Amino acid sequence: MTKADNSFSPSEREGLYRAIRERRDVRSQFLPDPVPADVLARLLQAAHHAPSVGFMQPWDFIVIDSREVRQQVHAIFTRENERAAANYEGEQAGLYKRLKLEGILESPLNLCITCDRKRGGPHVLGRNSIVEMDLFSVCLAVQNLWLAARAEGVGVGWVSILDQQQLAQALHLPDDVYPVAYLCLGYVSEFLPTPELEAKGWRSRLPIQSLVHSNVWDAPLDNAELEEALRNIL
Amino acid sequence: MTKADNSFSPSEREGLYRAIRERRDVRSQFLPDPVPADVLARLLQAAHHAPSVGFMQPWDFIVIDSREVRQQVHAIFTRENERAAANYEGEQAGLYKRLKLEGILESPLNLCITCDRKRGGPHVLGRNSIVEMDLFSVCLAVQNLWLAARAEGVGVGWVSILDQQQLAQALHLPDDVYPVAYLCLGYVSEFLPTPELEAKGWRSRLPIQSLVHSNVWDAPLDNAELEEALRNIL
Repeated sequence: MTKADNSFSPSEREGLYRAIRERRDVRSQFLPDPVPADVLARLLQAAHHAPSVGFMQPWDFIVIDSREVRQQVHAIFTRENERAAANYEGEQAGLYKRLKLEGILESPLNLCITCDRKRGGPHVLGRNSIVEMDLFSVCLAVQNLWLAARAEGVGVGWVSILDQQQLAQALHLPDDVYPVAYLCLGYVSEFLPTPELEAKGWRSRLPIQSLVHSNVWDAPLDNAELEEALRNIL
Repeated sequence: MTKADNSFSPSEREGLYRAIRERRDVRSQFLPDPVPADVLARLLQAAHHAPSVGFMQPWDFIVIDSREVRQQVHAIFTRENERAAANYEGEQAGLYKRLKLEGILESPLNLCITCDRKRGGPHVLGRNSIVEMDLFSVCLAVQNLWLAARAEGVGVGWVSILDQQQLAQALHLPDDVYPVAYLCLGYVSEFLPTPELEAKGWRSRLPIQSLVHSNVWDAPLDNAELEEALRNIL
């Protein structure tokens, strides 16, 4: 058998890598301009075409433009963030408080992507051993949407500092539906050249060579060609 | 402020959407051709550029070409799959047994992407409320790699029918490191035109309109423009 001959053109391939490289977790650069229906539809379809365990498609999309709902969610964030801030001391506490960690009210659109844990019945193919596979599938959908948004010039920020039970209440979620990702969406004044937490000195990017192992955990990367290739790209 | 002027060309944007549309969970079409080091390096870098909570980068990459390790993992799969098959009866049981659900030995390369749950210390920014955010971050990395692989003509299959404790043992993982995704990688004879589980009648794609809600769960999509846009794309 020969290799599939449906290869990508250089600019198609570059488009994907560019989205991967230039995608940011946006908190501060949102503009109020509305996201048109056709753009939003492409983003939702991108998410819906993610892989899912047993083709379960456990996701739903709650599109939120109501100011009232966003204010409720913002209040949940504020309480959780105060709890989180109390974990830090000294210089780190000061830096934490200066970081802007969400754009719930400034972005024109919020989107909650949920996971219906009962979808597809009691025995979902491929979810017998790892019961979290449905949540993981929803994350794959989030990343599809995040990359598509970058290609459309739309910024996305994932707000993870939320009490999920309170969030589920605010969005009237049924018992078996878990709010995996609460996202802020909107056009942006700029996509920052590097991740904000890196630029502000919170944490550095790890050298990828140190993260690659050979066959088992305790055997570090021992392939000189791969090591050099890793150094030379992206 | 004006919108960021770093827009994608039509073919760059199409490249991303094409990868999203044409990505498949590959089990049966692997070719033995090796994946060159520079291609593998681009895939790993794509994963490493995923977003992660608090810039935690909790992932490691175990690149597995050893036949011995793959045979151990294949034995774990076989046991788990027998357990899983016992959940089905009648026609569904017959269909389940006919499905090929992994390519561990046929693909030239396996890759385990793990999550180091202690990386970044006890208080990871953004992980105070949702402790699974590190696992979710690893899933975002998986999807980056999966899409990049499609753009490179490389097929990827996620094997989720594995006992994670036995897998962790086979790969010598330390206690705090969880094997999120066990992937098979390789060039393919073809990328199937539709997901295999859909083509074989296991489950259908859900109509996306039924998955979109307005502001809260109990309010269905009520935006005619968005509904029409959703019908017309991808």
